Amino acid sequence: MTREEIRTAIEGLGTLDPGIHDKDFLLTWQYQEKTIRFVLLAAQILEAFVRANIATRLFDAGLGLSIFRDKSTRTRYAFRAGCNLLGLMTEELDESTSQIAHGETVRETATMVGFLTEAIGIRDDMFLGEGHKYMMQVSAALCESHQAGVLPQRPAVINLQSDLDHPTQSLADLGHLISTFGGLDQLRGKKLAMTWAYSPSYGKPVSVPQGVVALMTRFGMDVVLAHPEGYDLVEEPLAAARRYAAESGGSLRIVGSMREAFEGADVVYPKSWAPAHIMRERTRLLRSGEQARLAALESEALATNATFKDWECNDALMAQTKGGRALYLHCLPADVTDVSCDSGEVSRSVFERARLDTYRQAGHKPFIIAAMILATRLREPAATLERCLESACQRRPA
Amino acid sequence: MTREEIRTAIEGLGTLDPGIHDKDFLLTWQYQEKTIRFVLLAAQILEAFVRANIATRLFDAGLGLSIFRDKSTRTRYAFRAGCNLLGLMTEELDESTSQIAHGETVRETATMVGFLTEAIGIRDDMFLGEGHKYMMQVSAALCESHQAGVLPQRPAVINLQSDLDHPTQSLADLGHLISTFGGLDQLRGKKLAMTWAYSPSYGKPVSVPQGVVALMTRFGMDVVLAHPEGYDLVEEPLAAARRYAAESGGSLRIVGSMREAFEGADVVYPKSWAPAHIMRERTRLLRSGEQARLAALESEALATNATFKDWECNDALMAQTKGGRALYLHCLPADVTDVSCDSGEVSRSVFERARLDTYRQAGHKPFIIAAMILATRLREPAATLERCLESACQRRPA
Amino acid sequence: MTREEIRTAIEGLGTLDPGIHDKDFLLTWQYQEKTIRFVLLAAQILEAFVRANIATRLFDAGLGLSIFRDKSTRTRYAFRAGCNLLGLMTEELDESTSQIAHGETVRETATMVGFLTEAIGIRDDMFLGEGHKYMMQVSAALCESHQAGVLPQRPAVINLQSDLDHPTQSLADLGHLISTFGGLDQLRGKKLAMTWAYSPSYGKPVSVPQGVVALMTRFGMDVVLAHPEGYDLVEEPLAAARRYAAESGGSLRIVGSMREAFEGADVVYPKSWAPAHIMRERTRLLRSGEQARLAALESEALATNATFKDWECNDALMAQTKGGRALYLHCLPADVTDVSCDSGEVSRSVFERARLDTYRQAGHKPFIIAAMILATRLREPAATLERCLESACQRRPA
Repeated sequence: MTREEIRTAIEGLGTLDPGIHDKDFLLTWQYQEKTIRFVLLAAQILEAFVRANIATRLFDAGLGLSIFRDKSTRTRYAFRAGCNLLGLMTEELDESTSQIAHGETVRETATMVGFLTEAIGIRDDMFLGEGHKYMMQVSAALCESHQAGVLPQRPAVINLQSDLDHPTQSLADLGHLISTFGGLDQLRGKKLAMTWAYSPSYGKPVSVPQGVVALMTRFGMDVVLAHPEGYDLVEEPLAAARRYAAESGGSLRIVGSMREAFEGADVVYPKSWAPAHIMRERTRLLRSGEQARLAALESEALATNATFKDWECNDALMAQTKGGRALYLHCLPADVTDVSCDSGEVSRSVFERARLDTYRQAGHKPFIIAAMILATRLREPAATLERCLESACQRRPA
Repeated sequence: MTREEIRTAIEGLGTLDPGIHDKDFLLTWQYQEKTIRFVLLAAQILEAFVRANIATRLFDAGLGLSIFRDKSTRTRYAFRAGCNLLGLMTEELDESTSQIAHGETVRETATMVGFLTEAIGIRDDMFLGEGHKYMMQVSAALCESHQAGVLPQRPAVINLQSDLDHPTQSLADLGHLISTFGGLDQLRGKKLAMTWAYSPSYGKPVSVPQGVVALMTRFGMDVVLAHPEGYDLVEEPLAAARRYAAESGGSLRIVGSMREAFEGADVVYPKSWAPAHIMRERTRLLRSGEQARLAALESEALATNATFKDWECNDALMAQTKGGRALYLHCLPADVTDVSCDSGEVSRSVFERARLDTYRQAGHKPFIIAAMILATRLREPAATLERCLESACQRRPA
Repeated sequence: MTREEIRTAIEGLGTLDPGIHDKDFLLTWQYQEKTIRFVLLAAQILEAFVRANIATRLFDAGLGLSIFRDKSTRTRYAFRAGCNLLGLMTEELDESTSQIAHGETVRETATMVGFLTEAIGIRDDMFLGEGHKYMMQVSAALCESHQAGVLPQRPAVINLQSDLDHPTQSLADLGHLISTFGGLDQLRGKKLAMTWAYSPSYGKPVSVPQGVVALMTRFGMDVVLAHPEGYDLVEEPLAAARRYAAESGGSLRIVGSMREAFEGADVVYPKSWAPAHIMRERTRLLRSGEQARLAALESEALATNATFKDWECNDALMAQTKGGRALYLHCLPADVTDVSCDSGEVSRSVFERARLDTYRQAGHKPFIIAAMILATRLREPAATLERCLESACQRRPA
C-alpha cells in the first residue's frame, strides 16, 4: 500500500466500531461482523506500516503475557511479535513455576499477572470442554479486579487456541484469502473444502476446522466440511456456521469424502483432527489418571485413523479442484508424505508447490494478534493509527 | 491523585535523599528511615502516573535481570512489570543452563550478566544462612567490577526474598497499610498481629514474618508476634525490631497464642512458616545429600505442624480484633481451608471477605520494585519524575 | 572517548563499507578485511556511547531471536544485551516446545520466527560437521522467504558459535587486544600463543581456537598454535590462517609444546578442546545412538587428556613470556586449578592476576554483536550513529 492507500484504509477503519473495548477476543462467533472486519482491516494496515517502515510502537510500556498449555512455535512467536510491534514487552507464564490450577487459584493468579498487563494470550486446546471455560474464568477474574479498582486497566484475554476456536488462525486464514482473491467481497460464492486428512499422530485439536467453518460461512462462502464417519466436531461452532451461511447466502454442507469436497473447490484445507468424542474421553481419562485406558484409547484411535490413509491431499485430488489449482491452506506444520512421515495429510509435490503460500498464510498472524489488541485496548484506534502515519517515525533506521 | 497532587508528592520526594545511589536494596534494617520513606513515596507516585496514564519509560535501554532459586509467580511478575514500567527489558538467568554456583564462579557470573544491566533481582530464600550471603557475594563482585571500570555502570542487587528479609513484600504490605489507614503517621499505635498459622505444607520461608516485624516496628506500630513454641525466627531481624520499637515508641511483643495476638488488633497477618532451626537442619541435609534424614525431618516437621491445626484465622478469631474487622494481610497464595486444602491458614469465609483487599496489597509490589530501582540507579529521581510529568507522554494511546 | 572523538570515529566508520547488508555473520574468513574493521570500530563506538550515557535505541521495534543448542551464559547474555542496546526485544526459541529438527522443518521454522525479526543468533557447536550447515540452512530459508516477499525484511543470522568458528568471541578477543595494545596496527609482529590446556572435562568445542588463529593472523600477528599430538583442529580455518599470515606478513606455526609457544609471547590463550577426530566420532555415535561406544569414547578421551596434565598455564610458564607478563586471554569459564577443579587449564595465581582483565575481554561481546546487527541490517549505519550522537538522548536519566 502507498501512504495514500494506508490513509484511506485508516479512514475506513474509523467507520468500524469494533465494540470490544475493555473486553476479550475469544470466539469469532461471539462478535458482530464489524468486529471481524475491524480486525481484518487493522491487521492489513499494520502490515502496510511495517512494509512502509513506519513505526507502530503505540504503547510506552506495558506487558503482553502468554500462557501456553500446549506446544507452540508459530502462535507463540506471533503473539510476541504482535505485542512487540505495538510496544508491549512479552513474558510467558511458566505454570510449572506458578500456582495456576483450578478454582480460586485461577482467579487469583489472573489478577497477580494483570497489574501492568494489556493482553493475556492463552493456548488451552487439549482438553475438550475445558479450554474455553478456563479463558472465561481468567476473563471474569480480570473484570472483577478491574471493576474493584485493583487493576489500573483491564487486560484483554486473547484466545491463542481453545477447545472451541482458534481465532488468530482462522482470521489469519481469512486475511490470506482476502489478499489472494482481492477482497472480502470476492469470497462470495467461492467453494472452500475444509476436510479431515490422515496423519500418523493422534489427538490433534478440533479448534482449527471449527474456527474455519464458523468464520468462512459468514462471508458468503460455500463451505464443505468432509470427514470420515465418526470424526465429528463440536456442535456449537457448527450451529454458528449454519446460521451464518443462511444469513450470508453461503452454505455449509457436510460430506463423507475428500474427493467430493475437493470437486470444483476454490480453496482446500486438508488437516487432521481427532474426533470430538475421543477428545472428550481423553480429557476424562487424563483427569482420572487412568493410564492403561488412555494407552488403549490411543492405540484404538491410531488404528481407526490408519483405515483412512487414503485421505491424503495429492495431485490426483487437486486435479479435481477449480481449474486444477485450488488454493491450498494449512495452519502448519503439515504432515507431509515422504518428508515428515511415510504417509500424511498431503503429498510432497502438492505441499512443495504450495509451501511459500502457506508461509504467507502464517505471516498474517502477528498482525491479526496486534489488531485484536488494538480492538480491545484502545478507544480510538483509527485516530491513533492516523497520528502514527503523520508522525512518520521509522521502524528500522536507515 | 490529581496532576497537582502528583506534583506536590514529587516535591516531597525531592526532600528525601534515598542515600543508596549505586548501591543495593537487600535488608530494610540496613537503611535509614528516609530511604524507606523514599521508596514508599516513589512507589505511590509511580502508581499515580500509571493511573493517570502518564508514560514512565525513563531508561532508553538497559536490562533487569532476575535469578530465581525458588518458585515465584507474584514477585517474578512484579519484577518484570516494575522494570518494564521504567523501560528496562527483563531477562531471567536460568541457572540450569549457566555456571553460577559458588566461590569464584558467582563472582564471575555476576559480572558476565552485568555489562549492560541496571538491576539484578534475586530470590534465594530456601537455604537459611545462605541466601543473603549469596546476594552479598553478587553485590561485592559487581562493585569490584564497576570500580575497576569493567562495568560501565553498577547494577543494583534487589532482594526478591532472601533467608533474612523479603523487602519488596514488606514494603508492599506497608504501602497497603498506608493507603488503607490514610498515611504513614496513622499507623502509630495501631496493633499488628504477625502470627504463625497452620498449613499442610512444610518449609515455608521465615523471611516474610521477619521482614514484617522489622519494618512495621519502625513506624510506631504495636507489633505482636505469635507462634507455637519452637517456631522461632532468626535473631537479627528480631533485634532490629526491638531497637526500632524502642526508637519509634512502638513495641514488639512475642506471645504463644493466635487468640492473644488477635485481641484488639487493627491488622492481622496469619501466615505459616517453618521453624528457623528446622530450616537450618534442612539446609545442612540438602548440602550433604542425606536423603533419608531429609525425609525423616519432613515427616517430623509435618507431624509437629499437625498438632497446631487450631492456628487458623477464622470468624471466631476475627471477632476478637478491633471492632471485629481487622485488616487481613497475606503475601499470597494463602492455604485456604476447604478451597486449596482441608485445613489451612485461613477459613474460607474470612479469606473471601478479604480477597480483593489481598489483591490490592499485592498490587503495590511492582511499584515498590520500580521505586527501589529509582533509588539505587538515579542521581536525581525527583527531578526526573518531574520532567516525566511535564512531558505528559501517554502510557497507553487513546 | 570524548564526544569529539566519537564523532571522528563515526567519520572513520563511514569510510568502511561492511558489504554484508541483508546478509549474515557466520565465519570471519568469509568476509573482507573492511567488514572486520567495520565491526570492530562500530563496537568501539557503541561502547563509547554507553560510557557517555548516550541513547542507542535505533530500532522502534523488532525482535532478536536466539536458538541455543548448547549451554551458554556469557554469549546468551551478550546477545540479549546487544539487541536491547539497539531497541530489539529478545526471545529465545526453545526447541523442546517447537518443531525445528532437520530437512523441511528447519526451512519452515526459520521463516515462522522471522516475520518481524531483525536478527537470529544461533549456537550449534557440539556436532562437528553440522553446526555451520544448520546455520546455512536457516540463512537460505530466510533468503528465499524474503525474496518471495513472505518476510518484510531479511533477518540476519548471527553465529553465536558453530563447529567451525566463534566470531563473536574472536572479535571480542581482538577488540580486547586493540584496547590493550593501543590499536589494530600495534598488533603487527606481536606473538600470540593459542595453546591447548588440560581440563578434567571432555568434548569442549574446537571453534574457539579455530576462530582465533583464523582471525589474528589477518593483522600481522605471529600466531603459534600448540597442542599435544592428535589434538588437531579442522583444516578450513587453518588454511585460512595460513593464507592470511602470508598476506599480512604475520605467521602461523604449529608446535607440540606449551613452553615453546609461550616463549617470548605477548599474548597467551591456553584453553582446552577435544580433538576434531574425537568430535567427529562423537557426532556419529550420538546420531546412531550407540550409547555404549559413546561411553567408551568418553573414557578413552578423558584418559588421553589425563596424560597431558602438565599443559597448565602456571607462573613458571608465564615467566617465559615477553617480559614475564604476557596478556592472558580466556573465553571463560576457565578450569582453574584448586578453584573449580583439582587440575585445570590455569593455576590459581595466574588466573587471579588476570581475572579482571578476562572480564574486560568478555565485556566487548555485547558491543560486537550489536555491531554485527548494524552491519547486516542498516544501509547507512554511520549516518544513523551520527544522528544518534546529535540527538543526544540519554541512555539512563539523571
